[in-house]
Amino acid sequence: MTQSNMHLILRLEINKNHNSFGEIATIISDSKGDLTAIDVIKEGAETTIRDLTIKVSNKEDQETMVQSINDLDGVTIQHISDRTFLVHLGGKIEVRPTLSIDNREELSHVYTPEVARVCKAIDEDPSLAHNLTIKRNAVAVISDGSAVLGLGKLKPEAAMPVMEGKAMLFKQLADINAYPLCLDEENAENIIQIVKSLSPSFGGINLEDISSPRCFEIEERLKEELDIPVFHDDQHGTAIVVLAGVINALKLVKKDLKQCKIVVCGIGAAGISITKMLLKAGAENIIGVDKEGAITKEEHYENPMWTWYGENTNPNRETGPLPTVIQDADIFIGVAAANILQVEDIKKMAEDPIVFALANPDPEIAPEVANPYVRVMATGRSDFPNQVNNVLCFPGIFRGALDCKASTINDEMKLAASKAIADVIPEDELNEDYIIPGVFNKNVVPKIKEAVVEAAYATGVARNKKDI
Amino acid sequence: MTQSNMHLILRLEINKNHNSFGEIATIISDSKGDLTAIDVIKEGAETTIRDLTIKVSNKEDQETMVQSINDLDGVTIQHISDRTFLVHLGGKIEVRPTLSIDNREELSHVYTPEVARVCKAIDEDPSLAHNLTIKRNAVAVISDGSAVLGLGKLKPEAAMPVMEGKAMLFKQLADINAYPLCLDEENAENIIQIVKSLSPSFGGINLEDISSPRCFEIEERLKEELDIPVFHDDQHGTAIVVLAGVINALKLVKKDLKQCKIVVCGIGAAGISITKMLLKAGAENIIGVDKEGAITKEEHYENPMWTWYGENTNPNRETGPLPTVIQDADIFIGVAAANILQVEDIKKMAEDPIVFALANPDPEIAPEVANPYVRVMATGRSDFPNQVNNVLCFPGIFRGALDCKASTINDEMKLAASKAIADVIPEDELNEDYIIPGVFNKNVVPKIKEAVVEAAYATGVARNKKDI
Repeated sequence: MTQSNMHLILRLEINKNHNSFGEIATIISDSKGDLTAIDVIKEGAETTIRDLTIKVSNKEDQETMVQSINDLDGVTIQHISDRTFLVHLGGKIEVRPTLSIDNREELSHVYTPEVARVCKAIDEDPSLAHNLTIKRNAVAVISDGSAVLGLGKLKPEAAMPVMEGKAMLFKQLADINAYPLCLDEENAENIIQIVKSLSPSFGGINLEDISSPRCFEIEERLKEELDIPVFHDDQHGTAIVVLAGVINALKLVKKDLKQCKIVVCGIGAAGISITKMLLKAGAENIIGVDKEGAITKEEHYENPMWTWYGENTNPNRETGPLPTVIQDADIFIGVAAANILQVEDIKKMAEDPIVFALANPDPEIAPEVANPYVRVMATGRSDFPNQVNNVLCFPGIFRGALDCKASTINDEMKLAASKAIADVIPEDELNEDYIIPGVFNKNVVPKIKEAVVEAAYATGVARNKKDI
Repeated sequence: MTQSNMHLILRLEINKNHNSFGEIATIISDSKGDLTAIDVIKEGAETTIRDLTIKVSNKEDQETMVQSINDLDGVTIQHISDRTFLVHLGGKIEVRPTLSIDNREELSHVYTPEVARVCKAIDEDPSLAHNLTIKRNAVAVISDGSAVLGLGKLKPEAAMPVMEGKAMLFKQLADINAYPLCLDEENAENIIQIVKSLSPSFGGINLEDISSPRCFEIEERLKEELDIPVFHDDQHGTAIVVLAGVINALKLVKKDLKQCKIVVCGIGAAGISITKMLLKAGAENIIGVDKEGAITKEEHYENPMWTWYGENTNPNRETGPLPTVIQDADIFIGVAAANILQVEDIKKMAEDPIVFALANPDPEIAPEVANPYVRVMATGRSDFPNQVNNVLCFPGIFRGALDCKASTINDEMKLAASKAIADVIPEDELNEDYIIPGVFNKNVVPKIKEAVVEAAYATGVARNKKDI
């Protein structure tokens, strides 16, 4: 992000006996700040409270300015807001009626007494809730704040800005009503029961930023016990977009996924989910590597997911650390840590190496370092080509699931979503720097939706009658 | 509601080999229906599916028409919708972003990476959630569907239309974002734990349509254990509006609440809550009557609320059924059942009888029967003057509580709300048919808000600094 348009708002309490406003204005211009607006918040006999909107060109100037103002006798900085904080004031979403109620007659249809007939109809046939309530088009964005972005465990309130951002994207990109619910609850079993109890009000559940391995149990149990789609975006969203990128990268290098040797580095929630997607898509030779080296069937692991991993991957039982198993790999997918992949490793890969270095904010190898040695490279960052961003997936996959009233989001629907994302890029536009469409590409959601609905009908999980 | 503008939509599957559309059109006109629109939903080789919008003048004509169409060979009625059902299609609320995200730069402020700074700030100081998330202006409308309107216990999905209606009113009348959550859970303790776990995402909790006596325990515990307002609207909303009506009725008859004898008939959740409000407002002589007669201190009751009631009311230990204790009463408040109050009873009341007959849909005495004998009468119905409607209360009381970041809605705030509602009607407009303002009166919410905020500051439960 460029800092050149950084705005901040200082709320100052100024003692009128001590200071002239001129002193403050002078400090601002001396620190290269541009005072663009003044709002009087409260005018008292001795003190005045004002919001000063100031344009600054960089963080250092801002700090000097704030320090100098703070040093003034009789001036108290009550609050500093920059643009990011300002857009968050009061939250980023709102709940609105879809029609206006302006008189008693209108009120009588949406509320008592007439609403009682709708309630009774749903009570007799609960499936009508999918038509006659917001359940038709609503997703709960649920987190416990246990693994927020790269920040780790936060208080549930502190996860709200991410979940509100997600709700904004659900609406803006796919016209889905999403409400963020950050739970003050840590126990997995309790979270499962809470989400189950909330399910009458929603047509889908998007789990978000829940720490591993709890996220697996929570998602699995909810999928079993609920009849609406449950989707842990951190696992599947990323995996779906990675597979989309792999599909397009393989078109460029003219290789078949089935024949590829794929090294997945970092076997946490994301690595496992990516591996599962690749297996479903037909990959047969995936080797998982973590700090202890390649995961194999022979080894005993504490983590039951690693046991599963060893049993379902690595058919040639390769062993050793990343620099060993990367020999002749066609594809490297990193969801591990910064700078663990070396140029020497890439040099050992098969012809036309495909490298997805997805660690955030610093990839497994810096793109500028890797570029001379790779054919196709993707990262999680927006400032390099081929960003793996799960914003590409969740709006469209839920749009499709809700449109056909799917009871679940199954593997076939996820695979269909991956292929749809890949297909957004026409063959004649496809190139090494453009294997994954941009987040604001208007074709992404409709393409995914169409493919997901079709897969839902094909697998018998759509509850809408297809004819109507 | 007048039926003269009733619209319905019939979705018909018509076998083209069996029927001409003319046959159907003839049936409609023969049944006095007016066909105003035809939408082709699906055109197949043999069948066609069409939505017919038809204006009908009454329910009987509609039934004849539907029956005749149903009897036609080769025509299947797939669905019948009337206007009330139509406004419910897809739900009555939506969740929208408060600002649009149209490019990566904007996305970076509301979502990763910049949102992380806001998350961290809230994690360090959770009180910032009241400024930087939707918690500032969001209320959860929570029900378990156990006592919906007059319908009794419904499935939780079936309560959604009422809660969505409530959410519409929150937004339209008080600009509050309310999300309806109907819980698939019956156990009171579990409901308490669920609502507690949801509290990080909301600035207030509106409990709704939860059966008695569970509603008391759930509300009490949540009030104790949460630091945001919890308000069971069925109890307090009604009580606040009743007190507002009583205040204005007493202005007309020039009596003092302290000196009035008040008979409350029907000692369930509403009756108890109304009694508590009247006591707080200064009433000293309230007598509760239920099927077993007047509730007194001497009697032993199974229901602990009745024990409380006996100990805190009926100072003169009156006994006997309604026709006995109503002797010399100034005010009758019924929240019991249809037609239990007789003209003979009213005749026994003190001069200028005030009768609130609030049973729904049929009051304790029909207004046309009571009118010659009462000075002021109120009901729960919109087709008579002086409707006690809790829509008058909840938007304004939550608006006030959220605006000053109140940690609770206490008795003083409720009393302030009652007085504010009463004060909406200027003394020179006050008359026997206008003691309670209308639901769409624009002064109601601002008046309540102002009074509630003042009461919150006066009682030390407002967390906003008053100066700013």
